[in-house]
Amino acid sequence: MENCFYCARDKRLLAIMEPVCRLDWSRVYFLRNQRHRGRCVVALHRHVRELYEMEPEERNGFFRETAAVAHAIACLYKPDKINYAVYGDLVSHYHVHIVPKYKNGPDWGGPFSDGGEERLLTPEDLRGEIRQLQDKLQRILGT
Amino acid sequence: MENCFYCARDKRLLAIMEPVCRLDWSRVYFLRNQRHRGRCVVALHRHVRELYEMEPEERNGFFRETAAVAHAIACLYKPDKINYAVYGDLVSHYHVHIVPKYKNGPDWGGPFSDGGEERLLTPEDLRGEIRQLQDKLQRILGT
Repeated sequence: MENCFYCARDKRLLAIMEPVCRLDWSRVYFLRNQRHRGRCVVALHRHVRELYEMEPEERNGFFRETAAVAHAIACLYKPDKINYAVYGDLVSHYHVHIVPKYKNGPDWGGPFSDGGEERLLTPEDLRGEIRQLQDKLQRILGT
Repeated sequence: MENCFYCARDKRLLAIMEPVCRLDWSRVYFLRNQRHRGRCVVALHRHVRELYEMEPEERNGFFRETAAVAHAIACLYKPDKINYAVYGDLVSHYHVHIVPKYKNGPDWGGPFSDGGEERLLTPEDLRGEIRQLQDKLQRILGT
């Protein structure tokens, strides 16, 4: 859809997240701001606004992939809980924020926020973390 | 699970939400505080903490039902967008908050919050709204 940055996948998107991989129903992104260690986004390929606009096969496939991303994050980062959120009042292309939470980390016990001090990785560390996430996801999805 | 109020469905739960119906994979609740008009919770029957702990059939069924609840809410309340969130750092039984958002309503453009002034319905209005939600859900799910 015109002007949607999840459809365009342009510099507006790439300024805040780095592509991890393309799956059958979704694309996975790794947030540049790793204030919540392991934070990702899973974005549906198709531009739909609401959960009930997905076709059944699409919905099943999308949540299988979202579950696999959460599983990979859990294996790699060992969070105490994962939060899953779809907001999109303004950017309404259906995408799930996968936000690992840690008992001694930011926002424990409440909704995660985008405030607080940014935690940016070096380019080498970013590449390394994305590579291990790709490997783990492949193993979980059996691809 | 012991001490989980979504498993026990006791007065701790009923103090903040009213049961709407039992579906194949989930129970639906209507929030007493209707600050976000139409706000509901969909709670998985089984006590699992994370999305990737669900069986595939369970996950497909749960999100079919969650989508139906969102669809019913959209039909009845005409929100401008629906937010879907699973937090559960402290109450970790898998449940989705379905939070309708309105351009002129609370928290538009940002994550919903539980703060702000409560909006409680009269018992009659609460019963009426739950009845219409039950009817709409039945029609959508074809049950």
